[in-house]
Amino acid sequence: MPPQKQARQRLLIKGGKVANDDLSVVADVYVEDGVVQQVGPNLNPEPSTGLVVLDATNKLVIPGGIDTHTHMEFPFMGSRSKDDFYTGTKAAIAGGTTMIIDFAIPQKGCSLTEAFDTWKSRADPKVCCDYSLHVAVTWWSNKVKKEMESLVQNKGVNSFKMFMAYKDIYMVNDEELYEAFSCCKELGAVAQVHAENGELIAQGAKKMLAMGITGPEGHELCRPEEVEAEATQRAITIANAVNCPLYVVHVMSRSSAKVISNARREGKVVYGEPIAASLGTDGTNYWNKDWAHAAAYVMGPPLRPDPSTPGFLMNLLANGDLSVTGTDNCTFDICQKALGKDDFTKIPNGVNGVEDRMSVIWEKGVHSGKMDENRFVAVTSTNAAKIFNLYPKKGRIAVGSDADIVIWDPKATKKISAKTHHQANNFNIFEGMVCHGVPVATVSRGKVVYEGGVFNVTAGEGKYVSRPPFPPYVYKRVRQREQVSQPVPVKRAPYTGTVSGTSVTRK
Amino acid sequence: MPPQKQARQRLLIKGGKVANDDLSVVADVYVEDGVVQQVGPNLNPEPSTGLVVLDATNKLVIPGGIDTHTHMEFPFMGSRSKDDFYTGTKAAIAGGTTMIIDFAIPQKGCSLTEAFDTWKSRADPKVCCDYSLHVAVTWWSNKVKKEMESLVQNKGVNSFKMFMAYKDIYMVNDEELYEAFSCCKELGAVAQVHAENGELIAQGAKKMLAMGITGPEGHELCRPEEVEAEATQRAITIANAVNCPLYVVHVMSRSSAKVISNARREGKVVYGEPIAASLGTDGTNYWNKDWAHAAAYVMGPPLRPDPSTPGFLMNLLANGDLSVTGTDNCTFDICQKALGKDDFTKIPNGVNGVEDRMSVIWEKGVHSGKMDENRFVAVTSTNAAKIFNLYPKKGRIAVGSDADIVIWDPKATKKISAKTHHQANNFNIFEGMVCHGVPVATVSRGKVVYEGGVFNVTAGEGKYVSRPPFPPYVYKRVRQREQVSQPVPVKRAPYTGTVSGTSVTRK
Amino acid sequence: MPPQKQARQRLLIKGGKVANDDLSVVADVYVEDGVVQQVGPNLNPEPSTGLVVLDATNKLVIPGGIDTHTHMEFPFMGSRSKDDFYTGTKAAIAGGTTMIIDFAIPQKGCSLTEAFDTWKSRADPKVCCDYSLHVAVTWWSNKVKKEMESLVQNKGVNSFKMFMAYKDIYMVNDEELYEAFSCCKELGAVAQVHAENGELIAQGAKKMLAMGITGPEGHELCRPEEVEAEATQRAITIANAVNCPLYVVHVMSRSSAKVISNARREGKVVYGEPIAASLGTDGTNYWNKDWAHAAAYVMGPPLRPDPSTPGFLMNLLANGDLSVTGTDNCTFDICQKALGKDDFTKIPNGVNGVEDRMSVIWEKGVHSGKMDENRFVAVTSTNAAKIFNLYPKKGRIAVGSDADIVIWDPKATKKISAKTHHQANNFNIFEGMVCHGVPVATVSRGKVVYEGGVFNVTAGEGKYVSRPPFPPYVYKRVRQREQVSQPVPVKRAPYTGTVSGTSVTRK
Amino acid sequence: MPPQKQARQRLLIKGGKVANDDLSVVADVYVEDGVVQQVGPNLNPEPSTGLVVLDATNKLVIPGGIDTHTHMEFPFMGSRSKDDFYTGTKAAIAGGTTMIIDFAIPQKGCSLTEAFDTWKSRADPKVCCDYSLHVAVTWWSNKVKKEMESLVQNKGVNSFKMFMAYKDIYMVNDEELYEAFSCCKELGAVAQVHAENGELIAQGAKKMLAMGITGPEGHELCRPEEVEAEATQRAITIANAVNCPLYVVHVMSRSSAKVISNARREGKVVYGEPIAASLGTDGTNYWNKDWAHAAAYVMGPPLRPDPSTPGFLMNLLANGDLSVTGTDNCTFDICQKALGKDDFTKIPNGVNGVEDRMSVIWEKGVHSGKMDENRFVAVTSTNAAKIFNLYPKKGRIAVGSDADIVIWDPKATKKISAKTHHQANNFNIFEGMVCHGVPVATVSRGKVVYEGGVFNVTAGEGKYVSRPPFPPYVYKRVRQREQVSQPVPVKRAPYTGTVSGTSVTRK
Repeated sequence: MPPQKQARQRLLIKGGKVANDDLSVVADVYVEDGVVQQVGPNLNPEPSTGLVVLDATNKLVIPGGIDTHTHMEFPFMGSRSKDDFYTGTKAAIAGGTTMIIDFAIPQKGCSLTEAFDTWKSRADPKVCCDYSLHVAVTWWSNKVKKEMESLVQNKGVNSFKMFMAYKDIYMVNDEELYEAFSCCKELGAVAQVHAENGELIAQGAKKMLAMGITGPEGHELCRPEEVEAEATQRAITIANAVNCPLYVVHVMSRSSAKVISNARREGKVVYGEPIAASLGTDGTNYWNKDWAHAAAYVMGPPLRPDPSTPGFLMNLLANGDLSVTGTDNCTFDICQKALGKDDFTKIPNGVNGVEDRMSVIWEKGVHSGKMDENRFVAVTSTNAAKIFNLYPKKGRIAVGSDADIVIWDPKATKKISAKTHHQANNFNIFEGMVCHGVPVATVSRGKVVYEGGVFNVTAGEGKYVSRPPFPPYVYKRVRQREQVSQPVPVKRAPYTGTVSGTSVTRK
Repeated sequence: MPPQKQARQRLLIKGGKVANDDLSVVADVYVEDGVVQQVGPNLNPEPSTGLVVLDATNKLVIPGGIDTHTHMEFPFMGSRSKDDFYTGTKAAIAGGTTMIIDFAIPQKGCSLTEAFDTWKSRADPKVCCDYSLHVAVTWWSNKVKKEMESLVQNKGVNSFKMFMAYKDIYMVNDEELYEAFSCCKELGAVAQVHAENGELIAQGAKKMLAMGITGPEGHELCRPEEVEAEATQRAITIANAVNCPLYVVHVMSRSSAKVISNARREGKVVYGEPIAASLGTDGTNYWNKDWAHAAAYVMGPPLRPDPSTPGFLMNLLANGDLSVTGTDNCTFDICQKALGKDDFTKIPNGVNGVEDRMSVIWEKGVHSGKMDENRFVAVTSTNAAKIFNLYPKKGRIAVGSDADIVIWDPKATKKISAKTHHQANNFNIFEGMVCHGVPVATVSRGKVVYEGGVFNVTAGEGKYVSRPPFPPYVYKRVRQREQVSQPVPVKRAPYTGTVSGTSVTRK
Repeated sequence: MPPQKQARQRLLIKGGKVANDDLSVVADVYVEDGVVQQVGPNLNPEPSTGLVVLDATNKLVIPGGIDTHTHMEFPFMGSRSKDDFYTGTKAAIAGGTTMIIDFAIPQKGCSLTEAFDTWKSRADPKVCCDYSLHVAVTWWSNKVKKEMESLVQNKGVNSFKMFMAYKDIYMVNDEELYEAFSCCKELGAVAQVHAENGELIAQGAKKMLAMGITGPEGHELCRPEEVEAEATQRAITIANAVNCPLYVVHVMSRSSAKVISNARREGKVVYGEPIAASLGTDGTNYWNKDWAHAAAYVMGPPLRPDPSTPGFLMNLLANGDLSVTGTDNCTFDICQKALGKDDFTKIPNGVNGVEDRMSVIWEKGVHSGKMDENRFVAVTSTNAAKIFNLYPKKGRIAVGSDADIVIWDPKATKKISAKTHHQANNFNIFEGMVCHGVPVATVSRGKVVYEGGVFNVTAGEGKYVSRPPFPPYVYKRVRQREQVSQPVPVKRAPYTGTVSGTSVTRK
Repeated sequence: MPPQKQARQRLLIKGGKVANDDLSVVADVYVEDGVVQQVGPNLNPEPSTGLVVLDATNKLVIPGGIDTHTHMEFPFMGSRSKDDFYTGTKAAIAGGTTMIIDFAIPQKGCSLTEAFDTWKSRADPKVCCDYSLHVAVTWWSNKVKKEMESLVQNKGVNSFKMFMAYKDIYMVNDEELYEAFSCCKELGAVAQVHAENGELIAQGAKKMLAMGITGPEGHELCRPEEVEAEATQRAITIANAVNCPLYVVHVMSRSSAKVISNARREGKVVYGEPIAASLGTDGTNYWNKDWAHAAAYVMGPPLRPDPSTPGFLMNLLANGDLSVTGTDNCTFDICQKALGKDDFTKIPNGVNGVEDRMSVIWEKGVHSGKMDENRFVAVTSTNAAKIFNLYPKKGRIAVGSDADIVIWDPKATKKISAKTHHQANNFNIFEGMVCHGVPVATVSRGKVVYEGGVFNVTAGEGKYVSRPPFPPYVYKRVRQREQVSQPVPVKRAPYTGTVSGTSVTRK
């Protein structure tokens, strides 16, 4: 008896309006074995047996979200973030996100490759959707450089994050930044920065504690937004010095976003990533009278007390000055946060977002009229896919793309709450927010993993996605500049006069 | 005998790299009857008989350019622009442009519909590629409003231009602007403005002449860039007051571009159109010692003497702050320009560009490393198609799109010269510029109309393209805002106190 | 018997810290007949008989405030402002202001000179402190120009205000603005503008009323801050075209202030005048549930709902981007405001301020640490004196200056209230504000007119102050530019080629 | 015989127009023993014997210039600057400058006090006019802090400069900056920074040399203006974190000046010092074909190749965004410059300026119409005197002021040339510039030290000027903010829930 051919996984999404980043059009989508085969009106794939059919009438059919910034089960500040790769990706799916990019973060002096392997081994058995890994560069040496090269060439890593904050822990100095950026440029990787002046934070924290400010408001007071803007400016300047594309993670403030926007106006290749938190809530929460509430919002860089911040960031995201959205999802429950109950510097930094990002952005961005559904797609998946060289497999619904697809109801609403969310945490920073824009069904690589509130996931079903270097979206310009923008020496007759280096002693 | 079925027009473009605005991919393109049928590797359409094959190996295959701004055979300032719809579109084709949008411009008090009909009747028998018509609103009345409505509903017009300059000729005042913008908003049309303060120009011109400045430099001196920036700011403010999307034609200065960019950051729906001239040359030419040279650059708004202008505009075009490119092609030969030999105010305003736009932008934008080929496609065709609701029929190479296609050699160079160009004019403002980026072949609706320097065009072969109202790219946000952003009255108890309108006489 | 020589009025202010705009120094001030005779330590003028002595120990001794912008007993919007020149100047004195500059405002078509005479005849018998008059130009003709000339040469007027708002009433168009600015430049006068786009206001008001928004919030909604910023930009552009210095009255918004600041960075001679209202309160009051409260804040341009506005304006005032402060004092009581109880467009525009300006600025500016007492003096009197050519007679305490002096207690506080203020109005927009910085005594031309809450004033005691043209502070640069910045024609051989004006008919 | 009483030094300056920063007035100035005794019309001091009389008819009489930034006989980069305190101050006097402030600069690890003493001992026997000394902080320790305290309290130092460039030589890192700024704030000193990112310069220089760019253009290419702007932004951010007033020396670029201006708009206490070089010439000189010419312009930060830089800086200086002017006078002759003939990093950094500053600023600032003579006085002396707490002894002509006075002919011109200048150097970066504005006579402490081209100076005649801490002009605001702007902790109930610090090992 011949070996039985495995049945193909087949899916038809009918009657929806397929929205990519450039266009929306009413069309069916037909999927086989996780890949989109056809997009067009009135598809009728034969045989109908074994064909899963999803009705998307009056709904949008959009590429699954890509969360560019998560920290699942991250050992950090004496604790470990609650969402692991299982609950985290499950929550993602429930919110319409079908891929996350997490961070492998070695301690100073430790191997990047080992960190990568550790993170991957944590993720592989648990992930319910596709994922990838950025790797952090927390120190510098020749070994680090070699490891970066190897990670790019052998492990599908095309992005490295450097911390300008977390002094003595992860922070690198300007010289190290320069080296890391140079290396990224050579390897065709995207340099990422956590942009805050770590020295000022350290000093500011001491100052606040000395003044008796020990509560969560001290967290923001010791690192006001100019501390973020300064580092952003510095990172851009250093990156530009080596013609390296730069990606600023978690843009939290007006000032920092302006710095990025201005740099882009000058032609610099820089991308800004606001996150669900900075787009959906603000730092007034740090002044909440309830310690647990206030502490729950502690993250770095902090949310800003200026309540016009989220709207401002959303304007820039709509306009193209900011490019993509992540979450920095790194959840700690109240008991973990309480590590810092007497000292805000000990509150584990991190908030939720992986589940709610899509709805929060829809509500604040699309429902408000700041962007249309196509720009929504751009900032929730397409641009991320382009920057990290996953396009058009990810971030687009087109023939040949991975069938990471969400059926999205733009009219339905949901009220966000920790009581109903799927994250491991017992607090939600968007508690009570009513959002238009709800995922009705989520498809991961052609499988309906979530529909009508019901999951159909298996831990480990997601795949690690390799990302090749030199993303064309990012690097075509960079390489061209390299060829045409090199300065040339002025041709001159040599100086033939006297030279008088007086042998003065420096005093 | 049955009528013989006409042979299908069939075309295969082989081996090129198909560059759309989001992606470049090596693929063949197969076309039938003017429409793209397939895009993919190794296409092999049968039968091979009657199949035209173009080899695009090592070349780019890009959507044909859309020039958003031309004035062919325009009766203006006592003369008529030299390029008519035949020579103008032929030159366009030679440069890689396959669609132009010209302007039907009624005199004050005259019918918009008649102007439209006049322009259409001039164009139809002559055009060698597709075209469409913006219509100018040069005065205001109920009749004008009715005509706008009719043009939108019956003639495929979805854009109207208002002049803030040319006092007493085309200029409308703020009240008229407000009415015209309101009307555009209702009809789903894009409001366009020529943004210069016409009053200041009129006064400035008098002043310059009084000072004895009669040469072309007076043209710029009487309307420095702040005159353009002021009007741009005003137009944006008025448009925003009625929630009308705005399109600023011919952005010529840093100041004006900044105004547009800043408005976009605030979430305003505004588009800026730099042109080949402002991206490729500058206003220092007005100070050229040769009168004929200087006069040849006279256009309104003028080119700017600040030599950093073109690079600045290109940065913003690369970055997304500016959106599309046109040319304001409106050619007058030296003898026509000489009408103003003793008085710059009488020099017919206009320059060339329709032929050279694509190469100039490639050279200054892509070859320089400011943008990649995908952004080049966006700003030379895709964005125009989106804004004017032609997308994805125009501005994209995809199944179902019009086969307006250019085979583009990014490595080849050409030297621009009036001696070799195909425009009717005897002067070229880009004379001597060596451009990388040369169109090898141009395909209009599936027909190879230009290849290797040889034309295969027929006057009248181009078609008028209707543009439906409410372009989704422009209007989705606008309509959503309309629904969610309406102010509501504060609920209050009525005032019940005394009212003391003292009957003072105004003094 | 010889006519008895009138006793000299003599005053000694002892022990205070004399604060001018450049310096604070502990010194006595000795005054005779209204003029400062000596400033120095330990003055001991003889004889002591008849010498009034004020003890200023631990107090500041500052130049009396100059309120650059008042409308006393102004017939406006069907009513007349409540403070007449008596109560208005008395209130001024109580607040530490010793000079006001009011506006003579002719109706369109009416004589400027007559308006001036009317206002002067109202003021002369009533004023308790010195005053002067700006004159408004509300229409244009040769007669207006002649009158401006005469007012400058014969009446001591060196400033003219043009309204860009109040359509059909006071508003002038761009051409009229151009003419008026040109005339000011020739005469050496300062051009002032009320900068709002009157057309947009008119349209916006109709729109709001049509939407059922009839309450005071409609006043702001129909003229948001970009309406102010647009007009400010336009006025600056027009003024610059004729090299005329510009003074923007009542700067009410961040946007407008930024426009001014940016123009100054470009070297334009432009001054911005925020007012007590825009520095001390904000437009959230228009949304107050109590109609009478909300209506009391109605003024044009409106206060802005963005609560960061006052702090922002104060920063720019501290920094030098804004120059002087007035009040636009134009009080209407609730019964007068009630003229617009069903239609916000009929609410008489105006608020109080003449009494509280100095304390409000001290509290928000000096007590907050944004400026020191010297900058306070600059923005409350010195700069006004310089701009309007009264310096150093006014705006400085120095030998030879008018003895308009205030003894100011920087530590004392007062709570502002309509119950205790001296203005004619029954409402105070600063109600409840606690201000550091209280005038202990006010001296007008050497006479102690207010001390410890007690007035010693006589109606008509104040004097009309002539202001000569060409204030050096304003005009030195302007005149120099006139000499060195004139463009010159390019020298060229005449064009000798053919001229081909084709006699096309415009179509 | 009784000891003969020394004759008083007496001077009368007749008939000039005395220009201070606030006003110009025709008046005589009478001086005794180096101090102004009277300013007024028609002074006629008796006896006339021994009275030196200077006729200033049709001339301006202005406070002598204060050059805030010189390096006389500075041992630097393997050489020593050519102008010593004698030739340097003599040249200053010839140019209308009567006080310089030089820098005492210890090597890393060395004593500040010793450096101060060394510099003072060099200067005292040589100076021909008054001077003072800033002290550099080039490293950090408790000893440094103590020395700063002592220098402030015992030596009359109220300003300290920190270098952010010159890696491994003078550069301090962010932590050291923070400490130094904190210390300045406590002591009431003005913190100064050389703002360039030293790390980027070091890397950039290596890169340029590796590319074969060894000439002077490499000096600018390795440290483009964003390297300056970045450091400026960083210094401002750090200074603001400790509420320390900041003074940015040698503002050389548009970007850096904008950073300063923007910070001022936000209320930060920051001052910018452009210099004669950045106001009068530009960095295109680095591309000069003559090596010696190009090298002569090498200084750090470099002049900028953007030719609009000087005009831009002058606009901001006129407007108040920039505050004072120095020169960074640090002259090396061609033979010294030739130390770097094969490697631009070895070219001793420095240019001339101390002699020409006043005339260059007059020409580019006043003659051009950008500022008037009063603003000229402000930026050449008054503001410096205020910031460094010398006012009104210096920087003003008033009773009691030091008689440092210049008779200035605003109409006369001179052509700057190394052939005629009085500096020790054989090159002048302003060679050939024709300047309006020429010092006719210079008076130092009442003595006519220069008149009509003839010197009357004695080495050592100048005096060291102590500068007390807490300059009120700078510190009044700072101290007030300290009192009112301290954050306070939120009052909360203590957190009483569980704390779960999981003892994870960091991985």
